[in-house]
Amino acid sequence: MEGISTRPSPMKGGDGPYSYAHNSVYQRQGLETAKVLINEAIAEVLDIKEVISSSSSWKSFAVADLGCSVGPNTLMAVENIIDSVKLKHQSFGQNQEALEFMVFFNDHASNDFNTLFQSLPPDKQYFAAGVPGLFQDRLFPKASLHFVHCSYSLHWLSKAPKELIDKSSPAWNKGRIYYIHAPKEVREAYSAQFAKDMESFLNARAKELVSGGLMALILTCLPDGNSIQYYDFAFMDLLEASLKDMVYAGLVSEDKLESFNFPQYNPTPEELGTLIEINSCFSIERMEPLVCPTKRGSSGIHGVRAVWEELVAGYFGSDIVDELFDRFEEKVAKSSIFSQSGNKQMIELYVLLKRKTY
Amino acid sequence: MEGISTRPSPMKGGDGPYSYAHNSVYQRQGLETAKVLINEAIAEVLDIKEVISSSSSWKSFAVADLGCSVGPNTLMAVENIIDSVKLKHQSFGQNQEALEFMVFFNDHASNDFNTLFQSLPPDKQYFAAGVPGLFQDRLFPKASLHFVHCSYSLHWLSKAPKELIDKSSPAWNKGRIYYIHAPKEVREAYSAQFAKDMESFLNARAKELVSGGLMALILTCLPDGNSIQYYDFAFMDLLEASLKDMVYAGLVSEDKLESFNFPQYNPTPEELGTLIEINSCFSIERMEPLVCPTKRGSSGIHGVRAVWEELVAGYFGSDIVDELFDRFEEKVAKSSIFSQSGNKQMIELYVLLKRKTY
Repeated sequence: MEGISTRPSPMKGGDGPYSYAHNSVYQRQGLETAKVLINEAIAEVLDIKEVISSSSSWKSFAVADLGCSVGPNTLMAVENIIDSVKLKHQSFGQNQEALEFMVFFNDHASNDFNTLFQSLPPDKQYFAAGVPGLFQDRLFPKASLHFVHCSYSLHWLSKAPKELIDKSSPAWNKGRIYYIHAPKEVREAYSAQFAKDMESFLNARAKELVSGGLMALILTCLPDGNSIQYYDFAFMDLLEASLKDMVYAGLVSEDKLESFNFPQYNPTPEELGTLIEINSCFSIERMEPLVCPTKRGSSGIHGVRAVWEELVAGYFGSDIVDELFDRFEEKVAKSSIFSQSGNKQMIELYVLLKRKTY
Repeated sequence: MEGISTRPSPMKGGDGPYSYAHNSVYQRQGLETAKVLINEAIAEVLDIKEVISSSSSWKSFAVADLGCSVGPNTLMAVENIIDSVKLKHQSFGQNQEALEFMVFFNDHASNDFNTLFQSLPPDKQYFAAGVPGLFQDRLFPKASLHFVHCSYSLHWLSKAPKELIDKSSPAWNKGRIYYIHAPKEVREAYSAQFAKDMESFLNARAKELVSGGLMALILTCLPDGNSIQYYDFAFMDLLEASLKDMVYAGLVSEDKLESFNFPQYNPTPEELGTLIEINSCFSIERMEPLVCPTKRGSSGIHGVRAVWEELVAGYFGSDIVDELFDRFEEKVAKSSIFSQSGNKQMIELYVLLKRKTY
């Protein structure tokens, strides 16, 4: 069944007006806020002698950014990590041989790596590689990474749960593309898929990170399990409404819409913490909300399009994309939800994990 | 001066009729022939215990294909290397922990990595990464590679020698795009640039390969320094003539043509051997011509276009490309050189180098 293949797609590539490269300010704010925390993690938690000696005569330090997409954010994040590690390494004395850095930029095989590679700064202080593939799978050899960074990516499920299009399942999600306004079984199916994906993710990274290696995660979490007064949910509601309008207008087939479910899930911090503890390969060194200066409002609509367009185009065809997002934009402009002061914000959660000694 | 920037370009990307992916049969023949030699090298020359222990607790084997381009050739080459190394590794006994492989596909940042990544087989037996950059520069951390493969790439110069467009130099190459029919100073300038590039290449690889690591090179060499009766030279001659026709027709400016020199040089085996010995970081384990079943004739014209198009388009503009290659094709069809039995063939040279112990 087609709906089973609702898989996440990479962000909008290229360098155009709707590209992720030009529409990722929202994510950037979280990253800017996380910078200081990551610097602190490297200064206080990273045992650089342990991780280098447990890895190699590589005499180099390997960083991976998982779900890197394209644009300034990934470059900024890895530069910051490298600056911090260099600072710490130099603090061991001037006779230290200079540490070399290898950075692996990972995203789906359909990510626009061509644009990413051409945007690498000519004076970069690291060797760069692109790694295509899903991060729920193994991507690197055993014990080959020292620092993993993964921001605004883990809420993407490897696929929409298959029960959602199974008419005999209590989680059949008829008439919806998400779990808002749905019976609890739908949300449970999403939650179960997230747990499965997270387990795969943690198991893969547990093999790839050296003992003592660090992993910094940034992801958007739900403060509690019941409220739907969140901007992201409002956007999702309006996308669903826009798709339904397209069905009424005969531009999208009803069957197609029925088999579509959005492969995204935002856990609560507690839910995430429990999954990490069950996995047991990592110690949780930090877990705290980022205090971001500004939040996404209706003005962030291009950012939403940059993130969602490829997914929607991949499923419904790229010919409907402009019309769909025109309708969507109109609904966002008319909606009062983005100006209501009582709206709750999602939590931008920062989690620092350390690979336990093998 | 513009001509200084005549740099090599990657092969024609994508999946279209003129793409390198569909027009690389000529190179494939060389690779097929080299397979058995590479297998022999791994069986006889590679000290697998030495290279693995001298590299890491990575417990993995890293292969790099430099100048990989896009298409089936690079995939075939790395699969073959991995099969051979696996075979050798398994021969040490059944209790061996399975070796993991990381493959780095390298080419210019403007290579079509998107197409390459999407062509990776889903059941591949290695972790894959793309590495953008010129292989005359450092691309990897110290002692991080075990096997380097580089085929049909080293004849590309990092740039055309700058003397060729210097009116005050004896190597000023007025009216030509190459060193055929040129004064000996022109060829010497090409040769000097090749020596410089080769030195950079060998120095970079000497740092990146572990002690005992192997490097297999395949490149097209000139049997002796004087004859010009080679297919590749005939193609170059006809490309030059076609460009001149375009100047007469007012489609290409004369200045533009004057500042263009083809950044390619085919050394003799002796010349190459001398450069490797001067560098002194590698022992030459094998150096022999490949005996390829068939050779490139006029029917190989799409292969020539796939290799040259991006370079020509990058310099003269993509709008002239179709007309230029139409004229070129016409000249090739009319030329008798490809049917003359007395034509000498270039040598497809196979060289196996071993990184000396540090």
